[in-house]
Amino acid sequence: MKKIINDKNVAVEQMLDGILYANDDILEGIKGTRVVLAKQRPKSGVAVISGGGSGHEPAHFGFVGDGMLAAAVCGEVFIPPTVSDILSAIKACDNGDGVFLIIKNFDVDVKNFLDAKVLAEKDGIKIAHVIVNDDCSVEKSNYKKRRRGVAGTILVQKIVCAAAKQGQSLEELEELASEVVMATNTLGVALSSPYIQGSTTPMFELGDHEISFGVGIHGEKGYRTEPLVSSELLALELVNKLKGRYELTSESSFAILVNGLGGTPLMELYIFMDDVKQLLEHEGIQVEFKKVGSLMTTNEMHGVSLTFLELKDPTWLSLLNSDVKTFAW
Amino acid sequence: MKKIINDKNVAVEQMLDGILYANDDILEGIKGTRVVLAKQRPKSGVAVISGGGSGHEPAHFGFVGDGMLAAAVCGEVFIPPTVSDILSAIKACDNGDGVFLIIKNFDVDVKNFLDAKVLAEKDGIKIAHVIVNDDCSVEKSNYKKRRRGVAGTILVQKIVCAAAKQGQSLEELEELASEVVMATNTLGVALSSPYIQGSTTPMFELGDHEISFGVGIHGEKGYRTEPLVSSELLALELVNKLKGRYELTSESSFAILVNGLGGTPLMELYIFMDDVKQLLEHEGIQVEFKKVGSLMTTNEMHGVSLTFLELKDPTWLSLLNSDVKTFAW
Repeated sequence: MKKIINDKNVAVEQMLDGILYANDDILEGIKGTRVVLAKQRPKSGVAVISGGGSGHEPAHFGFVGDGMLAAAVCGEVFIPPTVSDILSAIKACDNGDGVFLIIKNFDVDVKNFLDAKVLAEKDGIKIAHVIVNDDCSVEKSNYKKRRRGVAGTILVQKIVCAAAKQGQSLEELEELASEVVMATNTLGVALSSPYIQGSTTPMFELGDHEISFGVGIHGEKGYRTEPLVSSELLALELVNKLKGRYELTSESSFAILVNGLGGTPLMELYIFMDDVKQLLEHEGIQVEFKKVGSLMTTNEMHGVSLTFLELKDPTWLSLLNSDVKTFAW
Repeated sequence: MKKIINDKNVAVEQMLDGILYANDDILEGIKGTRVVLAKQRPKSGVAVISGGGSGHEPAHFGFVGDGMLAAAVCGEVFIPPTVSDILSAIKACDNGDGVFLIIKNFDVDVKNFLDAKVLAEKDGIKIAHVIVNDDCSVEKSNYKKRRRGVAGTILVQKIVCAAAKQGQSLEELEELASEVVMATNTLGVALSSPYIQGSTTPMFELGDHEISFGVGIHGEKGYRTEPLVSSELLALELVNKLKGRYELTSESSFAILVNGLGGTPLMELYIFMDDVKQLLEHEGIQVEFKKVGSLMTTNEMHGVSLTFLELKDPTWLSLLNSDVKTFAW
């Protein structure tokens, strides 16, 4: 697989240099770390931090800036950030009112963020966290829910950060974040397998006309492989599975995110959005917020994920709609 | 080539439906046309319109909104918009102060936009235009410059639209646009060939390890094919060719755009940006504005283009930096 890189061992460092150079109006780094800081960090109120392995760009640096994340911490490609880098980000962002961590549900991500949390608390920093587990795909072999943290994480970040900017306390944010996470479900489908930097072997096998439903964001294969027929049938599978996660009433209303997985042209995302729209209208499901873009990716993987977030509280919509100054929201 | 579509014959219509649905806070359509209008169009002052064939998303609908384009007119994939649709857009946007057209330099695009201009003038609408020809690649066989309109068009749009919002007249915009176009040069490199919707044949042949320098945005093959070595060598080729287009002095300063051609992960664009930065610093070339993203694409083509815009007038920088409310700027 051809990639525009120089050396896979310095790809993340070079990317970070490029990010900080191109966005030097809103972002800055901490030397010797893989931390991307908002230049304009909150002087009072809770600072929100997220992060994870690289390969998911623009997540998470693209959501750092006024009104959204105070910092993003990157790891190597598909490898969680280090405890030391997470701790550096926490210390750089804390203004005395505490730090809130948004963690994607992968074992090592959770472990490293929570280890950093313990160390920060020892230094007297108030800290709370949420673990995002929006992936509602099911392992076919044992019907175990996977509940990984995927694209829905960006919606959780948007809501929690907007609430932090409004002055909500660490305890209030913890409760809010937990409720938003419970209301969020995502399912993805891949048309191609991604390649790790430097590798000539795809992360999973997929035939010329096949797709894989329920893929993760690190090349984890999905729950079912079948031939690609149409955007409409992709939408039908994802919408049906997602709506099964909710107890729908005539009052139910949703935010939806159509997320490209890396190599997906915007035209395809909008065609898919149109199919999702028609299915939701047919079901009478009310949509108050829509977003389309490649926000949480897996290198050059071709595919799309769909996220439903039930707007259980009317304030969530205004939190989603509030202004931010970031590269990618 | 797998694509998330239903039927290639309605792909553009379905995409437009998806665009208008997902962005209904800022965009609206004109029934029976392929025109995307800003909901908030200028009530006085010149309205700026652009457009072209589809397959280049987010160009141009992604740049429609307050502070940028008043309308974008789409055609079929890689086919220019119709005279009738362009005329509909002009009529919808004119407030009596005139309409300015930004046209990419392809024969049929130019013909259709200018035919619509003539018809609009017959209806008493004041109208002016610029033709963007930033592609500075050279046909190897006869050393003829190609001068197609490519990614630099977005920078031209940004500057001209910001000046229109400041109240510049049609005549002033015509002069400004012409100067900005002369200061703008772009070169692209492809790592893969794109596929037209519904086709299983790539638009040009490219070996497993080959790249093509100087590609166009409709699958036009480049001026030289060679093996892919590194991001650094891509940057070296493009920077060298581009800087040869300018008479550099110690006063010269530039805006640069690193543009993904469709299927290019953001990580690769930022690594390339870092290589460009190092070359420019080495040359002592001053950069006052940088942008990185997939703004002018060719379906799922993997590759990157680099645009230089010499900031010949200090006001151009503030026009580039002014706020807009669009989906993709």
